[in-house]
Amino acid sequence: MKIFNMSKPCFLTANEAIELIKQRKLSRYEWVQSCLERIEERENLTKAWTYLDIEGSLNQAKKLDDLNNDKFGIPIGAKDIIDVSNMPTQMGTSFYKDNIPKRDAASIAISKDAGCIIIGKTVTTELGHRHPGPTTNPHNPEYTPGGSSSGSAAAVADFMTPICFGTQTTGSIIRPAAYCGVIGYKPTYGDFDKSGILPNSPSLDTLGLIARSIDDIQMMRNILLEEKIKIYESIDLKKFKFAFVRTPYWEEHNDECTKTELEKFIYELTKLKYNILEENLDDLILRSSEIHTNLSGFEFKRSIAADRINHFEKLSEILRYGRLTDGNKMSLQTYRKLQGQLEENRLKIEKRLNKYDCIITPSAPGEALKGLEFTGSPMFNTTWTLTGMPAITLPIFKSKNNLPIGCQIVSRRGNDEVLLGIGKKLIKIFNQNEK
Amino acid sequence: MKIFNMSKPCFLTANEAIELIKQRKLSRYEWVQSCLERIEERENLTKAWTYLDIEGSLNQAKKLDDLNNDKFGIPIGAKDIIDVSNMPTQMGTSFYKDNIPKRDAASIAISKDAGCIIIGKTVTTELGHRHPGPTTNPHNPEYTPGGSSSGSAAAVADFMTPICFGTQTTGSIIRPAAYCGVIGYKPTYGDFDKSGILPNSPSLDTLGLIARSIDDIQMMRNILLEEKIKIYESIDLKKFKFAFVRTPYWEEHNDECTKTELEKFIYELTKLKYNILEENLDDLILRSSEIHTNLSGFEFKRSIAADRINHFEKLSEILRYGRLTDGNKMSLQTYRKLQGQLEENRLKIEKRLNKYDCIITPSAPGEALKGLEFTGSPMFNTTWTLTGMPAITLPIFKSKNNLPIGCQIVSRRGNDEVLLGIGKKLIKIFNQNEK
Repeated sequence: MKIFNMSKPCFLTANEAIELIKQRKLSRYEWVQSCLERIEERENLTKAWTYLDIEGSLNQAKKLDDLNNDKFGIPIGAKDIIDVSNMPTQMGTSFYKDNIPKRDAASIAISKDAGCIIIGKTVTTELGHRHPGPTTNPHNPEYTPGGSSSGSAAAVADFMTPICFGTQTTGSIIRPAAYCGVIGYKPTYGDFDKSGILPNSPSLDTLGLIARSIDDIQMMRNILLEEKIKIYESIDLKKFKFAFVRTPYWEEHNDECTKTELEKFIYELTKLKYNILEENLDDLILRSSEIHTNLSGFEFKRSIAADRINHFEKLSEILRYGRLTDGNKMSLQTYRKLQGQLEENRLKIEKRLNKYDCIITPSAPGEALKGLEFTGSPMFNTTWTLTGMPAITLPIFKSKNNLPIGCQIVSRRGNDEVLLGIGKKLIKIFNQNEK
Repeated sequence: MKIFNMSKPCFLTANEAIELIKQRKLSRYEWVQSCLERIEERENLTKAWTYLDIEGSLNQAKKLDDLNNDKFGIPIGAKDIIDVSNMPTQMGTSFYKDNIPKRDAASIAISKDAGCIIIGKTVTTELGHRHPGPTTNPHNPEYTPGGSSSGSAAAVADFMTPICFGTQTTGSIIRPAAYCGVIGYKPTYGDFDKSGILPNSPSLDTLGLIARSIDDIQMMRNILLEEKIKIYESIDLKKFKFAFVRTPYWEEHNDECTKTELEKFIYELTKLKYNILEENLDDLILRSSEIHTNLSGFEFKRSIAADRINHFEKLSEILRYGRLTDGNKMSLQTYRKLQGQLEENRLKIEKRLNKYDCIITPSAPGEALKGLEFTGSPMFNTTWTLTGMPAITLPIFKSKNNLPIGCQIVSRRGNDEVLLGIGKKLIKIFNQNEK
């Protein structure tokens, strides 16, 4: 993405804009204003936002300009299941219009404290499940942006903000980011705190980030962790072992374009003498899917008890007869057993992948689906969420319809910094090959 | 406790009151009214409540009387870190007076749906940590009720409600329940959903119950799990193996009375030919304490980011220089290591306790402390919270000052029903011996 050439600040990544602010070539106010103008220009079509605090955001930017310290006023959007004080948390429903928290989610408080400006709340599917919101894909409004972090992916892809918060319980960051052609990052389970975020399936729920550059993800990761963690600027990919995992869905569910592009990419990497082996995890991936359905069903049914009990009639059919039905089939005893099976399955996967530093696998089955009714399948994400392994989607392929297709890379739990470094390098290699 | 003889409905357990309602000898309205009268009579001294919905509660009771179905209008108090719609969640702080959630915590929604009436919010220590609220011990107002579920334990002990919700991250249910002479129950980690409850240390936080009878705990457990789980009405204790665990704190930190009473009780059980062995877990218990301090410190610091960032000056010194300082010492990398150590330590404890069905150990170091400044030490609870094992405190001993002393029993994860059954039988045996 050659966005540096574009004229307006909204097209910059956060790191690029911060560099200009440091050089006094851009003010925080101009940056935020440019994002808000972009939203004004595009929101009618993209519909990424459920709430915007225009005046408040500009005022904060002005204040930070006056202070002129290392708080750079990074404009950020938060998925609307994350509490931001004095903005409604509607969670993709019709019945929480006046649900205005007084307390920021931990991630929000930490970001604000580091000089981020939360300009508004982005569209989520209903309660973070499957029923879609109005958001369209910025690359073509006839296509879904994916979900559940629909608005976050679309807003970043449409240059409305450089960074948004998303959450993932199955494939809710990686898939929309892939469909919208941006970078989606689901960290190791537990790396980012979840206080103040609607729980879906607490054993799996992961707060993550969507951005247009790995640098921005690395910066936000350090902000959220409140510590300076080593950032891998340049990595020698020859030192790492890669597994190419097609998954059992490759033949039947993947479209031709994803197959071709991904295989071509693997071939290029092999030519460059990178250490890549194909690894078949079909049995464990299928088992993951089974475990995930039942476990997340049970936990989801409980997490959203207030909504199903007090607002049942206002919930979508897909929710009532989807995950809620999965949950109703389960008992505490089955759930307990399942937790043991999850652990067993995770250990098996970790053992099989032990010799690799990084897995390369599809982000989603092909390009975004046409129509806004379905946000697509998370089949290529389930295993990595269930095991708590960190995952990124890199926006490096295009479909025949000129829609983005992502390449997902995954690593061991706790290996996020290396994964981000690998991702940065892979994007560079791909862009060089493209030239 | 011979409360059936007392004249007012507030002195009944929930099961006793429900029996009378079924027999048309008591209305739900009378029950709730009696509890509210008791509160009016005693609240000046006990100070268990931060919020009461008197009118709403009576209206709900009236409505349920009119319906006259199996929703019995059980009056319940919720610790004030649990969201109840349209009641402020103040979390023991001065800065959340207008924090009024629109959405019930899952446990609250489920309870209400089953016919419980949330009559109000009970005092918690500041953000569920150590800085005390105004609550006094109903057995003697010069003594602490324990914490952090201070108001919940005191309200139940003072016959203001038959049941209250509490939460435990270290010893926040078991200790106050023991100090106040009631039954505290911390289920297996994860048994009850935590949506809508302030997180403290999410890996450890456990929603639980305080009541005056095991029957009431069993009933509420079934309500919260939304399924009919087997209730052990009568258990043959001769079939079980018991471990008596003194812990490394026995000599130095435990008072003489707890030692004597507990040893006498163990002796009585041995005389009855129950299978009891003494088990020394000192090394693992000391290790648990270390792990707990660092792990909960790290998670707590993150969970309450909004509060420490936006309201630092209004936080107590004990919070700022206690768990927050523990948290500041930790990095993500140390946290990750600690998670591995936690798991390892847990497996070792489970292995050592494998042959036992139930552990008998002190609930707290002696009777409640004099003065309201400190809520007491959770040293006898840390290990069982860290391992996620279910625990109950049984109010079966008295100190020389005529204050209650609890006996804690603990079991394997997932063995809650058996543990509750054992608890019921132990109370019976103790009461027979007392006669």
